[in-house]
Amino acid sequence: MPDLNHMKISSLSGFPSEISDAEFTCRKDKVARVLEDKKLDGMVFFSASSIFYLTGCALFQTERPIVYIFKPGGGSALLVPRLELEHALDTIRNCEILSYPEYPGERHPMEYLVDLTCKMGFEKSQIAADMKGYPGVMGYKGKNLDELMTEMKITLLPDLIAGLKVHKSKFEVELMKESARWSQLAHKLLQEYTRPGLTEIEVASRASSEATAIMLKALGPRFRLSGLDGGGCYAGYRGQVGPHSYFPHSATINAIFKKGDTLVTGASASILGYFSELERVMFVGEPSKEQEYFYGMAVAAQDAAFAVIKPGKKCSDVDGELRRFFGEHDLMKYWRHHTGHSIGTGDHEAPFFDAGDHTSIEPGMCFTVEPGIYVEGLGGFRLSDTLVVTADGFELITYYDRNIEGVICSDK
Amino acid sequence: MPDLNHMKISSLSGFPSEISDAEFTCRKDKVARVLEDKKLDGMVFFSASSIFYLTGCALFQTERPIVYIFKPGGGSALLVPRLELEHALDTIRNCEILSYPEYPGERHPMEYLVDLTCKMGFEKSQIAADMKGYPGVMGYKGKNLDELMTEMKITLLPDLIAGLKVHKSKFEVELMKESARWSQLAHKLLQEYTRPGLTEIEVASRASSEATAIMLKALGPRFRLSGLDGGGCYAGYRGQVGPHSYFPHSATINAIFKKGDTLVTGASASILGYFSELERVMFVGEPSKEQEYFYGMAVAAQDAAFAVIKPGKKCSDVDGELRRFFGEHDLMKYWRHHTGHSIGTGDHEAPFFDAGDHTSIEPGMCFTVEPGIYVEGLGGFRLSDTLVVTADGFELITYYDRNIEGVICSDK
Repeated sequence: MPDLNHMKISSLSGFPSEISDAEFTCRKDKVARVLEDKKLDGMVFFSASSIFYLTGCALFQTERPIVYIFKPGGGSALLVPRLELEHALDTIRNCEILSYPEYPGERHPMEYLVDLTCKMGFEKSQIAADMKGYPGVMGYKGKNLDELMTEMKITLLPDLIAGLKVHKSKFEVELMKESARWSQLAHKLLQEYTRPGLTEIEVASRASSEATAIMLKALGPRFRLSGLDGGGCYAGYRGQVGPHSYFPHSATINAIFKKGDTLVTGASASILGYFSELERVMFVGEPSKEQEYFYGMAVAAQDAAFAVIKPGKKCSDVDGELRRFFGEHDLMKYWRHHTGHSIGTGDHEAPFFDAGDHTSIEPGMCFTVEPGIYVEGLGGFRLSDTLVVTADGFELITYYDRNIEGVICSDK
Repeated sequence: MPDLNHMKISSLSGFPSEISDAEFTCRKDKVARVLEDKKLDGMVFFSASSIFYLTGCALFQTERPIVYIFKPGGGSALLVPRLELEHALDTIRNCEILSYPEYPGERHPMEYLVDLTCKMGFEKSQIAADMKGYPGVMGYKGKNLDELMTEMKITLLPDLIAGLKVHKSKFEVELMKESARWSQLAHKLLQEYTRPGLTEIEVASRASSEATAIMLKALGPRFRLSGLDGGGCYAGYRGQVGPHSYFPHSATINAIFKKGDTLVTGASASILGYFSELERVMFVGEPSKEQEYFYGMAVAAQDAAFAVIKPGKKCSDVDGELRRFFGEHDLMKYWRHHTGHSIGTGDHEAPFFDAGDHTSIEPGMCFTVEPGIYVEGLGGFRLSDTLVVTADGFELITYYDRNIEGVICSDK
């Protein structure tokens, strides 16, 4: 097990086991205000991640629909399959919970949804919905809401929750900082364990599982991985090993490390459903002059992007500056993707640091900054850090070494 | 590291690194026949899993659309973002590959799709599509195909690929058997490493990562994890530890094993995108009389379902027999879900062993059989095995011990 002495562990006691009711109330109030503005009586949610965002109820999404009907001012309801009933009752508060037996079942789950919406007095109402109907997950088929409720007037608001997620609360930023702490550890272990002859998968799973075990010990018994999280910490290479790191989104292969490899990493940890993103270039042994050159360019490119990020600028300004930097240093032939993306509850969220995204940068937004340089035969050069925009600039959430001396793995 | 002497490893030499061209040709021919029957000129695919199924090209689905346009008789094309161009060129054969710079980009990716469909001569054609447009993955927004191509006549065939997947080829069944072999190992390690005082996550990640490392060594250097697979083998508890195993779809919590716990497991391994499903009840130490009783009932319930499965029967017959068995043994109060589901490339696929699914059972279909008994305060009792239907019955694909003596973990 690694030495913990050098780690910053400020959360040993009493890490929260769940997101507070106050946070959920605040989120639901925002939805209520949007509905009020649009003179809508309620909203139907089919998206499991949106249901989790509004209620904290993390239910595994299968062929069996889970539907949340939000009614401002109280009286919201959740429809779940029978197998999730006790789990939902155990998780959610201030919400009526109803269950149907099964999908497809002798009676289709959507018929229970019709009953429920009628019972709530919504059969002729003006209602919002995040989707037309439950999506075709794991073999599900069924009618859309407008086919079921012909007298209901349905307004699709597919982007409402995504819009709310753009600005993070202080609590959400704290969760992302906690994620960054354990990403840091997982990544450090990844670096320590990487050496010639080993495969990326064994090293990644060792680093990830040890970091997860340590995180759980450190955060204490109140801490719970939320249901949508999977297994805690992750650090690995996703196939970006040696010349294969040239593929920006490679996939995990059974790559074996060799002296001289350029490596592109990825690390994260899921904290109550929140993520940070940490990616580095590493080298197996001392880097060559060429590797050193492109590493320096990748760091400088990230700095060029950082220099633009503050309230008042647009997302496209950041990408524009990055492209200017790439042009100036004759790097456009190595360009493959935009500069970054919003992050929080998912891998990638909108808005994007992209030439075509003119969203204004505002305090509380969280982004990755990850320009990439991809050199055929040599590899990929991409550092990704996560930040939160502040009143006059930004604060970095991830904090792994960017010096080239700090990203060298053993070649023994 | 575990002793390998007892393992059946018949695939040490030359496990295929990818699905053969012949298999893909066969799949595309089936799509072509459907299109011909419906007098359609081609088909647009937005689903990453369907694109993988038809081409073997496993691209990570993000905010950047990936679109495959299938043209029977040749001339198919794939549209990818710039960052996936070389990766796609490296993977796919017999297909034109075009790229657009980025999403959202200065020009929206869907405008490139319009160019491509026009170039292929499809602007006024009768075309099938698997979805109306690219789904809202990771912050993506864009127009649907019918808004973009107003003179095209679009027929939605959302279930075409799901329908093709229902019957597995011999090769696909071989992949699922290979998956079962490594699920077996991961599960065996899970059982060996489980003991009081340890947490489910440390045990699950140790078993999963060791099994993955062994699998990769055993299958040899030609074997590749496909891009959509993630990390190889998995065995774990997903929160179903002790009384918490009462929740049929619990989520991973930081549960600590205690003597007397009832455990419900899950194990799988991804082999070129194919899965099996293996789940068992286990006990920490000798089971109590009550645990023994419900374990016996769970095994007998599975046997009752097995007895019905053969060509000529309907999926609902299997679930009907299970419910008859539950009724006969006064178990309906412990019932929570249907008897099983089709399986192959995803976690759950249609059809289902469900009272409301009257699909005929036919040779080549693969199913899980996993009736569950959920006893509050005591735990869950669910064994899941994967099988393939044969001409006169079925063959089990998974083969873990079902004797109660075989599922006891150390209580020391």
